[in-house]
Amino acid sequence: MTTHIELTPTSAVDCSSAATVMMPAERAECLAEIFKALSDPTRVRLLAYISDSIDGTACACHLPDALGISQPTLSHHLKKLTDAGLVTRQQRGRWAHYTAAPSVLEVAREFLGASTEAAARCC
Amino acid sequence: MTTHIELTPTSAVDCSSAATVMMPAERAECLAEIFKALSDPTRVRLLAYISDSIDGTACACHLPDALGISQPTLSHHLKKLTDAGLVTRQQRGRWAHYTAAPSVLEVAREFLGASTEAAARCC
Repeated sequence: MTTHIELTPTSAVDCSSAATVMMPAERAECLAEIFKALSDPTRVRLLAYISDSIDGTACACHLPDALGISQPTLSHHLKKLTDAGLVTRQQRGRWAHYTAAPSVLEVAREFLGASTEAAARCC
Repeated sequence: MTTHIELTPTSAVDCSSAATVMMPAERAECLAEIFKALSDPTRVRLLAYISDSIDGTACACHLPDALGISQPTLSHHLKKLTDAGLVTRQQRGRWAHYTAAPSVLEVAREFLGASTEAAARCC
């Protein structure tokens, strides 16, 4: 008769218990894309500026002066924010207007909130 | 006699009003650093896993199996999270243990929260 013995790795004896579930890869990729769009100081300032503008919408005509950057550089950063879904773009006559998108901001905020609450339980 | 006339650029006539204040560059850089640390799917999963672990702390010994990555790759990602202040590292015997840092998570969350609320006022 052969007896099967379960061995616990000695390295894990003193370890904290692991979390039960790993976040699905697709959700992690979605969140990383949002955070990547915000991984640049100019884009962080742009999003804050657009959100704080009256009606939550800013005209592109105001932005280069406010940030001290060129129009092509501004267009590059606005495209990154738009592609990530953090702002939406609407053409009004000659100028594009940008509006912050609360739903995508909320997805990122919820992730950080859940992590904050989980971490705060023990601190 | 010369009369000075203030000209309003016609391009700005129909524009939404601009925000009053641009975020200071130092704060934008600080926030961008936090978001940069979260701009990778593996690091997003790592942070969620650590936060959700019992006591908000995970032993590095559990992480490669959970994520299906090598120890050197894991070390690289954990260093990025540690450098950004999102997790703290404590050596316990042979293994390092990582704990999520609620205060830094909260800084990023507050920014997204402020932007969400500002944007939601008009949507």
